[in-house]
Formats: sequence, C-alpha cells, structure tokens
Amino acid sequence: MTSLRFSSRAAFDAALAALPGPDLAAREAAAARQAQLTKPAGSLGRLEEIALFLAGWHGAERPRIARGRAVVFAGNHGVAARGVSAFPVEVTAQMVANFAGGGAAINALARAAGLALSVVPLELDRPTADFTQGPAMDEADCLAALDAGAQAVGDADLLVLGEMGIGNTTAAAALAAASFGGSAADWVGPGTGVDPAGIARKVGAVDAALAAHAGALDTPFEILRRLGGREIAAMAGALLAARHARVPVVIDGFIGTAAVAPLARAVPGIVDHLLAGHVSAEPGHRRLLDRLGLRPLLALDMRLGEGSGAALAVGVIRAALATHDEMATFAEAGVAAA
Amino acid sequence: MTSLRFSSRAAFDAALAALPGPDLAAREAAAARQAQLTKPAGSLGRLEEIALFLAGWHGAERPRIARGRAVVFAGNHGVAARGVSAFPVEVTAQMVANFAGGGAAINALARAAGLALSVVPLELDRPTADFTQGPAMDEADCLAALDAGAQAVGDADLLVLGEMGIGNTTAAAALAAASFGGSAADWVGPGTGVDPAGIARKVGAVDAALAAHAGALDTPFEILRRLGGREIAAMAGALLAARHARVPVVIDGFIGTAAVAPLARAVPGIVDHLLAGHVSAEPGHRRLLDRLGLRPLLALDMRLGEGSGAALAVGVIRAALATHDEMATFAEAGVAAA
Repeated sequence: MTSLRFSSRAAFDAALAALPGPDLAAREAAAARQAQLTKPAGSLGRLEEIALFLAGWHGAERPRIARGRAVVFAGNHGVAARGVSAFPVEVTAQMVANFAGGGAAINALARAAGLALSVVPLELDRPTADFTQGPAMDEADCLAALDAGAQAVGDADLLVLGEMGIGNTTAAAALAAASFGGSAADWVGPGTGVDPAGIARKVGAVDAALAAHAGALDTPFEILRRLGGREIAAMAGALLAARHARVPVVIDGFIGTAAVAPLARAVPGIVDHLLAGHVSAEPGHRRLLDRLGLRPLLALDMRLGEGSGAALAVGVIRAALATHDEMATFAEAGVAAA
Repeated sequence: MTSLRFSSRAAFDAALAALPGPDLAAREAAAARQAQLTKPAGSLGRLEEIALFLAGWHGAERPRIARGRAVVFAGNHGVAARGVSAFPVEVTAQMVANFAGGGAAINALARAAGLALSVVPLELDRPTADFTQGPAMDEADCLAALDAGAQAVGDADLLVLGEMGIGNTTAAAALAAASFGGSAADWVGPGTGVDPAGIARKVGAVDAALAAHAGALDTPFEILRRLGGREIAAMAGALLAARHARVPVVIDGFIGTAAVAPLARAVPGIVDHLLAGHVSAEPGHRRLLDRLGLRPLLALDMRLGEGSGAALAVGVIRAALATHDEMATFAEAGVAAA
C-alpha cells in the first residue's frame, strides 16, 4: 500500500526528486535463472526482459502478479469547447457510466487480462479552465488530482493506467510540446477521429496555450497544472506513488505517455518502472515514446485510450512470467545446452 | 473434424487447388456489430480485424474459441551433419521429452493462452536425407508427413502450428529461396544462435541445395519434398487440412512461415485463413511475411520456434473476441455516437 500524499507542491517535488530503484539482487537472480531455462540464450527476446523487469521491481527471483489493477481516470476539459473533438463533452460522463456497467472495451480487456478495474471520475461537472486563456487548474485542483491518482494505487502489484476525457489529446499535445519542444503541429493528431478542420483547431489551441504560458512552464508541476487535466495529473500522481511503492506500471496511449513527459524532462529515471503497453495510431505517440526511451510492447493500430492497449499488453507480461516461472532448466530436463 | 487425407501427390495438389473461403455473411454481420460498439469507429485497430477474420472462418457473428490447440511437430534433418546449428541433433528428441514433461516454453505459453498442446515427433531416429546431395524425402515420406499434419488438426477451432528440429532454419531458408527467389544469403540467418562460421556453412548448404535441385523445384510438393523436412511438411499438411475445415491457423516463426511459402507461390490465397503470430528476430522472416502479404501481430524479438510466438498471439486474439462479444452498443449504453 502506498502512503504517499501530495499535500503540497513541495511534497510532489520531493517525491519526484527521490525515486527508489529496483532490487538489483533479485533482478540478477532472475537473470541467472533465465540462463538455465531450456531454450537458446536470449531466444524469448522481450519476454526475458519483462521477467527481469518484474523481478527487480517486485524484489523476487520469480515474480507473480496477484493483484493486477487497471485504473481509468476521467476528467473534462475546458478546451473541448473549442471544437477539438469528434465527440460532445457529455460522452465523458456517459462512458464513465458505461465503465460502471461493464460495457466498454476496457471492461472486456481487463477481464481478459485478469485485472481488477477501478474507475475514478474527477469532478466531471467542473471542467478544467480553457488553457488557451489561463492555467487549466489552480494549485489545489492539481494537487487534488495528483492525490486521487496516488490513492488509486491501493495494494496493486501491477498497475495499468488509463484515461477518458473528451478533448484530452489536445492537452496531451500541449504537454508534449511544453516538455520536449517542437511545434503544436509536431504533436497534434486526429485523436479519436476528428476531421482536418478539427485538427487545425487543435493546432490553434495548442499554439495559443504555449504562447499564453510562455515563461511559466519551468517545472513538472507547472506544466501539469497549466496544460494538463485532472485525469492527466491523476495518472502522474499514480505512477509517482507506484514508484515509491515499487509497483511496476503499464502506461497506455498518447495521453498516458504525455502525463509522464513533464516528469521525465526533469527526472529521466521516472520511466524506469514503466512499461509502454502499446504505441497508438496517434502520430505523436511514437515520437513521445522515443523521447522517453520507452519501447512499446504492442503496435496494433489501436487509438481508443481507456487503458485498452496497456491492459492488452498485460497478457504478454503474464505469459513472460509464466515462461520464467514454469520452464524447466537444462539440468532438470536433461537437455544439452549449446 | 477434418477428414482430408494426402494419399497421393494428386490428392495434395487437388486440396491446394480447391480452397474454401470464409463465410462472408457472418463476416458482414460481425462488421455491423463492430460499428455499434461503444468506441470511435476503428479505434480498436487490429482487434477489430481479428474479430472479423474469426467471424468469417467460424461462420459466426460472435465467434468463440472453445477448442484452441497448439501442435508442435518435430523432425530431424540430414543437413544438420553439416554444422548448421549451435545445438547437437540429439536436442530434437531431448526437447520432445521436455515438451512431454511440460517444461518447455511452449508448455507455459500454451497454458497461458488456454490452448491444448499436442506434440508429434516424426521418425526422429530416421532423419531426412541431406538435401545438398538429393531429395530430403521420397514421395511416401513426404505424404506421410503431410498426412500426420492433417490428422493433428482434430476438432480444433483455432490451430497454432509450431516446430522443433535441429537444422531446420537451413531447410526454411532453402524453401524460401526456392519459392520466392533470391540468393541463399538473402534468407539465411543465425537461427537459434549459430556463429558466423556456422552462418557461412548454412549459406553453403542452401546454395548447394538450390544447385542440386535446379530445374526440379516446379511444384509445391516437389519443393517440400526435396528441401523441406517432416515437421515442415506436417505444418503444410495441417494448415491445408485446417483450411478445408475452415479452421483459422496462427503460424509462428521463420520455419512455419517457410512451410507456407511453396504453397503460396502456387496459390496465394492459401494465406487467407492464416494469422502471423509474431515476426521473429531471424532476418529472413519479415521478408518472407512481406512476400506472403501477412502482417505479424507481435514483434518481441523472440527466435525460439516451438510455436511460442503464435501461442503468445492467441492472448491478443482472445482479447479481440472478448471486446467483440462483451462490449455494449451505443444504444445499450446510452452513449452518444460521433
């Protein structure tokens, strides 16, 4: 259980400045086991990397996922009024109801992956401010969202982070540009399916936001507060709290990755406990993963959000642990090593 | 249950010449359902393609996998005496024993994917002939291997094909070159980890084989018989029998894909009931998939064989069907469509 609270901006900064690392002895024990399993060395490729990654963060030679959890944070965005989405803002709350009813893609994918699912709506009736006009959130709102994220980690031993928020690919593009530079056009894409005129409105909104906040985007907290949204800040809070509890996290699409960006600009090692589940069809996502040094496990042309790509990747992660745990060694099986 | 038998070369040719197609009405019904599910159109990417693919081959708007099966065929190769593998030939039989004991990667991955596992060793104490000197198999041997493949389909409703055979990446490279042209060097790679001198021996063996059989590689059957191996012919027989039973097949790595190559040169539509589970680290594999028009579901740097990559992909396939079957429609959930 994580006990991290983001009671102040300083508490957030302190948490980001003092990240724990993995258990290297457990990781080495897992590597020694891998070398004895009945297969040519390295022939399970990234499955072997995954097993070592989990071993390090769980502090166990043979890690197991007993309490895998997907959390979907939902928030509404003032910038949505600028026509940046193909869907009306009411869809955020409608989809939260759909999550509760079990009918969304993430419900099916979490069940298929053996994940408990939590849905955390964040003041949907109080959208963030339009960030082309001023900060999306005041300090108290941003801290509350970060804290909601930290509390959602619970006792998970693997955490999938997802989101829902009409308009939030526009916020994500702004976060990416503020964190890593480039123009609005470098980071804006069609999201869940906006038309070319909508893309132009998204570029305009991001350009306006970058101009409005120029000179004020100098810390991770300020970038999140001014350009993010509640569900985005909540994902940042969740992954930071997970890190302090040494819980590995699977991030999902463009928005979840954008939540990492401001943190990683300041502290690149924040990505060390993260796996990128899926690279989405949103064009900026691969560029953003490259900047973070994260290589996605899956590339299946998905562009839904909700944590869908990350939940799907949990099947690969579970299979990696199954090989690591269940395979015989050369000695046990009487097979000649190369 | 498939009743296809390969009692003669003519029976094989006839089966390849008369391939049944999918149930287009069921596929269209599945597409209509996809359009109503609570997500932006197309946002589940390849998961949607997979659902439609299964709907067509199962003849069901909402297909289910109730009898998924992985089959691993094993064979020994005369060409192995030419030093083309990092492992001694005894390892084929040792790994068959490991499969029986439940300790190999495919055991863990089949369990994780909910697949029954069958292992079919094919006269391991009677390797094929060295194909640099003459045909790998006589006609009766090749027919017996094709038939063993057909019989292994059983009542599966999804079939994963795997293989084990020391030296068989060399045979696979020869099959690829004979089917699609190019030099030996275009198709030879390190396999499970042979050193550069071993790669040179592989190239030499494939060049010698192509020269020895020049002018005689004019039908799928002759390519399989002269350059293949028993486990390779068995995979070809299995996927052809599966097609006649409208059972979708997930192929695995370079060797399993090479088993398709001679058939696809003659009848490109043979790939229509196939999914490529994984593109391996073996360099020729991506090139071969491209020639077949198959796009792999996974790319995780695996290079083991055994059906390991295909079994892993079954998790993605099951997840695709879960979304297709379990998600609510816009009307059911009261969500506004775009």
